[in-house]
Amino acid sequence: MNGLQGYTLPFSPTGNSSLVPPPPWHFSGDVLMVEYRTDPEAVKAFLPEGLEPGEDPGRAAAIFGDWQSATDDGSELLDPVRSQYKEFYVALSCTWQGKPMVRSPFCWVDRDFSLVRGLIQGYPKKLGSIWITKQFAVGRATPGLAPGERFAGSLAAGDRRLVEARITLESPAEAPALASAPLVHTRHFPAWDQSESDLTELVTGGSEDLRIANVWRGDAELEFFDSPYEELSLLAPVEILAGYRFSFAETITGGRLLARNGR
Amino acid sequence: MNGLQGYTLPFSPTGNSSLVPPPPWHFSGDVLMVEYRTDPEAVKAFLPEGLEPGEDPGRAAAIFGDWQSATDDGSELLDPVRSQYKEFYVALSCTWQGKPMVRSPFCWVDRDFSLVRGLIQGYPKKLGSIWITKQFAVGRATPGLAPGERFAGSLAAGDRRLVEARITLESPAEAPALASAPLVHTRHFPAWDQSESDLTELVTGGSEDLRIANVWRGDAELEFFDSPYEELSLLAPVEILAGYRFSFAETITGGRLLARNGR
Amino acid sequence: MNGLQGYTLPFSPTGNSSLVPPPPWHFSGDVLMVEYRTDPEAVKAFLPEGLEPGEDPGRAAAIFGDWQSATDDGSELLDPVRSQYKEFYVALSCTWQGKPMVRSPFCWVDRDFSLVRGLIQGYPKKLGSIWITKQFAVGRATPGLAPGERFAGSLAAGDRRLVEARITLESPAEAPALASAPLVHTRHFPAWDQSESDLTELVTGGSEDLRIANVWRGDAELEFFDSPYEELSLLAPVEILAGYRFSFAETITGGRLLARNGR
Amino acid sequence: MNGLQGYTLPFSPTGNSSLVPPPPWHFSGDVLMVEYRTDPEAVKAFLPEGLEPGEDPGRAAAIFGDWQSATDDGSELLDPVRSQYKEFYVALSCTWQGKPMVRSPFCWVDRDFSLVRGLIQGYPKKLGSIWITKQFAVGRATPGLAPGERFAGSLAAGDRRLVEARITLESPAEAPALASAPLVHTRHFPAWDQSESDLTELVTGGSEDLRIANVWRGDAELEFFDSPYEELSLLAPVEILAGYRFSFAETITGGRLLARNGR
Repeated sequence: MNGLQGYTLPFSPTGNSSLVPPPPWHFSGDVLMVEYRTDPEAVKAFLPEGLEPGEDPGRAAAIFGDWQSATDDGSELLDPVRSQYKEFYVALSCTWQGKPMVRSPFCWVDRDFSLVRGLIQGYPKKLGSIWITKQFAVGRATPGLAPGERFAGSLAAGDRRLVEARITLESPAEAPALASAPLVHTRHFPAWDQSESDLTELVTGGSEDLRIANVWRGDAELEFFDSPYEELSLLAPVEILAGYRFSFAETITGGRLLARNGR
Repeated sequence: MNGLQGYTLPFSPTGNSSLVPPPPWHFSGDVLMVEYRTDPEAVKAFLPEGLEPGEDPGRAAAIFGDWQSATDDGSELLDPVRSQYKEFYVALSCTWQGKPMVRSPFCWVDRDFSLVRGLIQGYPKKLGSIWITKQFAVGRATPGLAPGERFAGSLAAGDRRLVEARITLESPAEAPALASAPLVHTRHFPAWDQSESDLTELVTGGSEDLRIANVWRGDAELEFFDSPYEELSLLAPVEILAGYRFSFAETITGGRLLARNGR
Repeated sequence: MNGLQGYTLPFSPTGNSSLVPPPPWHFSGDVLMVEYRTDPEAVKAFLPEGLEPGEDPGRAAAIFGDWQSATDDGSELLDPVRSQYKEFYVALSCTWQGKPMVRSPFCWVDRDFSLVRGLIQGYPKKLGSIWITKQFAVGRATPGLAPGERFAGSLAAGDRRLVEARITLESPAEAPALASAPLVHTRHFPAWDQSESDLTELVTGGSEDLRIANVWRGDAELEFFDSPYEELSLLAPVEILAGYRFSFAETITGGRLLARNGR
Repeated sequence: MNGLQGYTLPFSPTGNSSLVPPPPWHFSGDVLMVEYRTDPEAVKAFLPEGLEPGEDPGRAAAIFGDWQSATDDGSELLDPVRSQYKEFYVALSCTWQGKPMVRSPFCWVDRDFSLVRGLIQGYPKKLGSIWITKQFAVGRATPGLAPGERFAGSLAAGDRRLVEARITLESPAEAPALASAPLVHTRHFPAWDQSESDLTELVTGGSEDLRIANVWRGDAELEFFDSPYEELSLLAPVEILAGYRFSFAETITGGRLLARNGR
């Protein structure tokens, strides 16, 4: 082994150069979420072997997150370029061996450490540009947490706008189920030598210490835009169910292998 | 006039293409601020004719802001790429005709609308990359608003890190004076035809509806880094006074001309 | 004057902090250009008082540029973050006092020094994201300068794609007239004190040492996309004339005032 | 398998959403390269088991590249946001089973597709900001390919400048050996289920159709800057050998497994 260390590349004698440090990873942030129904056949087409559509088979969510992440010593929070990122992903309701789970067919983030950390877990991350209305304590350039207040999110990738969402708060609410159901991901690392096999694993995440606070529910708008290179609009909404805005935290520690070679 | 409209370029028949809409502009955000003392001679060298050093002549502040801005109809908040920006600026304590004021010798933001809106007011803005620790409601990847909690800010421009600041909260406090004193700016638009004169005006801003909330005070660290092209380190700290973290809002409506051709 | 110096803000005792250094400014780059016809009425609506439509009244061009700029000592080329930018602008054929000129109603660049340098000249610049196919000397991931080779350009702003252009080279050619006609701009700096007047000047630029090389001409495609906040599609093509790809250089030294207060 | 396709995540029914398409990948670009000697012990500490220092044991290079990449149909070149990226990497001279090879301990690029494509091959890529002087055909804001002309490169990551290089051309030359020696990489994909093992493979790349043109050689300067989170300065130059500027192309088709679990 020669002493080279690292949870991810790059390796070094100390291991400090690694793009992603080993878990546990702690997350805190604010989430904007639109629950919607899409074509159940489209959901089915995006579920790998072993997963079945959920009870409400076209149920889905579009989820925007404004995040900080840190390891145990919290040092990333003191050099915030190393801890902040924004995220958008689609969540599809599904089941694995009869248990309710969530599948993410598409995900975008805006920082490298989050991209690679996601690929390790099986999040299908690309880089994108994500904007989410912030909530500040005072003034006229912020929504409050009160009935009628409005929040919005947008996603672009490859210099094309892909998603717009708007939420109008109505009342405090319980957290939506898709926000806390376990995620079931496909980890995939292509072979490089053609005589070898790809690594493909169906896994579920190791999320702990989930905390959700200040949940508000209301009406929502959600639009997916066509792109010549993205297929997000295959999962476009046919019915909008509700919008949510809440604070969210969790700790991710590692996952559990469900199956090998499952796409 | 032919019907072309616009508060700023670009002009169009409707005026809608203008990079910056006309004031009033509403601002809401969170601020990280380090009060410090720099060399009083350096402050003097950065004050234009008509301004005198303040009572405490080397008094200064390094100010990081995470902002949303909007016009009266608030439409920017529903397409947040049009409303969010981050800012760093230095504030120097000074007086104009005996009245306490603040002078900003250097300022960086990360969005075009804020850059040009700033130049109109006389903020000496460039583009930079600004990161500021965020405060979320739950979890381990966020400081709280409580004694011992830590926040940080950083500034880079031209791919060089220029400023790092860290604050450790101690207790709720009154807002620091430099956060709300009126700013005195030099607006400057160079002549393009060499037979004409530059436009140079000493102005003070039209800030209204100032609101400051959740002020915490504590210890701070602040470091300015050398750069071959920036002169920020001429105003480097010789003594750190205190760190602050607070929420801030104001409305800017227009300014008042104090003098022409004053550098 | 107290010794504060600067061609633009920020001022400092040395003048070195200025975002834009004084002219002359030297430019070298590669250009992708699509000549097209738009609605002559639309052109007219974008011409300020004093300008008339050109002989071919709807004639226009969409111009992408990949640029380096430098002052006399060329130091910016040795810290290329300070010298490189990309640009897209629309050029409208027009006349001023019977002389053929070009008017740019819309322009985007991707760097702060170019944005502010443009505003001084009257270019109506905003920040955008511009991509232009590059031409390298070898390999399969580059077009050559030969018949049938293809180049493309795209513009996005506010995370929305606004323009796409594609050119297929046919043969070497003369440079298109719109590439070298003098530009006639409106410089505009809004008043800040409401009792003062805006500065608005009709100017023409001081371009010298124009050099155009390696001009190829061919077929082109050009598409402008709608956006809720941009009005570029008012000037969308109704007929595509030709595409060009060439290298371009000039030196800009200062301009000439044609009229005051002309929009 | 349920029909989900993709060379990388995200998978979809068509496979079109994949961040990286399958090889072959074609590359064309311009390279700035500084050959230098670093501490041979440092090189040794960065070589995994199975690799030995080269004949000149501290020999290394700092390599900046301005790249386009495309698949066989070249469609990426017609939407250049999908084909362009810039890169910086360090190359260490080494041998594997007596054969001269190159090891890259650190690498930065500025686009997601290049980052993930690199990780598949074993390039230890992070995102960074890379600037490289361009060479245009005309004008004063470009170096020529002639004696005395100067080019520069810089790298920043995490808003900190990490590398600066400058080259002064002297004369046409042969391509430097480190530019074309085969690379030997460690592919690494951490286990997610703690009862599983990491995938770690020593591989060598499948580069074909290598073309190098317009090679110029000259004097060089190279500086690595400290960073609290990067270890690049462990491999800082103790002697500068020469600078090079050339055009480069290759096709990458897949690699060959040399050993498993080799760090």
